[in-house]
Amino acid sequence: MQRIGFLLLAVVTVAGTVALMAHASGPADGDSSPIYGVKIPAGYRDWQLIAVKQLHFAGKGEQLRAQVGNDIAIKAFKEGTLPFPDGAIIAAIHWTRVPSEDNNKVLDVPFPGTQSFVKFMVKDSKKYAATGGWGFADFTDAKPGDKALHETCFPCHVPAKDHDYVFTRYAH
Amino acid sequence: MQRIGFLLLAVVTVAGTVALMAHASGPADGDSSPIYGVKIPAGYRDWQLIAVKQLHFAGKGEQLRAQVGNDIAIKAFKEGTLPFPDGAIIAAIHWTRVPSEDNNKVLDVPFPGTQSFVKFMVKDSKKYAATGGWGFADFTDAKPGDKALHETCFPCHVPAKDHDYVFTRYAH
Repeated sequence: MQRIGFLLLAVVTVAGTVALMAHASGPADGDSSPIYGVKIPAGYRDWQLIAVKQLHFAGKGEQLRAQVGNDIAIKAFKEGTLPFPDGAIIAAIHWTRVPSEDNNKVLDVPFPGTQSFVKFMVKDSKKYAATGGWGFADFTDAKPGDKALHETCFPCHVPAKDHDYVFTRYAH
Repeated sequence: MQRIGFLLLAVVTVAGTVALMAHASGPADGDSSPIYGVKIPAGYRDWQLIAVKQLHFAGKGEQLRAQVGNDIAIKAFKEGTLPFPDGAIIAAIHWTRVPSEDNNKVLDVPFPGTQSFVKFMVKDSKKYAATGGWGFADFTDAKPGDKALHETCFPCHVPAKDHDYVFTRYAH
């Protein structure tokens, strides 16, 4: 009888997992980034928030950025685990600031508009040993940038070496 | 045998629910807002992201804001459900922009600092019928602002009446 109980449970667990996977899957994952071979992780828009920022990118204007992380990344951020464990993924979602008519009636500031680009850092200490254990990806409209763009990722993160190449801190 | 299977399952489900509740509970909920009686919802910092913004508050300087929602609110945002269903809660977390030394080595922009204040909108169409079905709360260091402050919440949201008094749109 106990065996049947566990069997039932196993079926329910599998069903639950399938349902979760179906829920988490977003748009087709499509192309992967050059050099690192990182694809857009399914369901990243639903990940928990690490921090937010406003910043200026040359040629891309004012950007509002939210960084979100998968469960492994969020746990590491909250517990201050360094280096980040393999499997951690950090996503930096950028939106172009555009005005919102409604919003400006009260608060005279631009509103996040359409998604501008999204960047990912994927931790795999063996696969990406040459770049601090991180694989990088930069997508615009679900299309990865070129090799030249991706060659700039790691050098730009080197100043944050003491924090495992991650600039961002968890915003409590 | 089937009954025992379901019994086992029920035990596991309850255990899982208790574990989830323990995980979701944050700091002590403490005081509630005047007028509306809204307390800080447990675990709100782990809710999914609606949108981000940079804005200026008189006397509080530059602020970076992330809005997050509980499951009911997120579902309504994604599906465009208006009015928001009872039980929806939207949290607006504000951080004061402060420089980060690391960060400024690469991107010369301020970084989110300590949490400045956090505001909540709680949907209960009966309890808060007089204010569009929304209860409001504004906390600084887990202490609610005074009655005068909370008297400003609803009038300020009236221009967004066509969107159920919510200015923010889901940032895809």
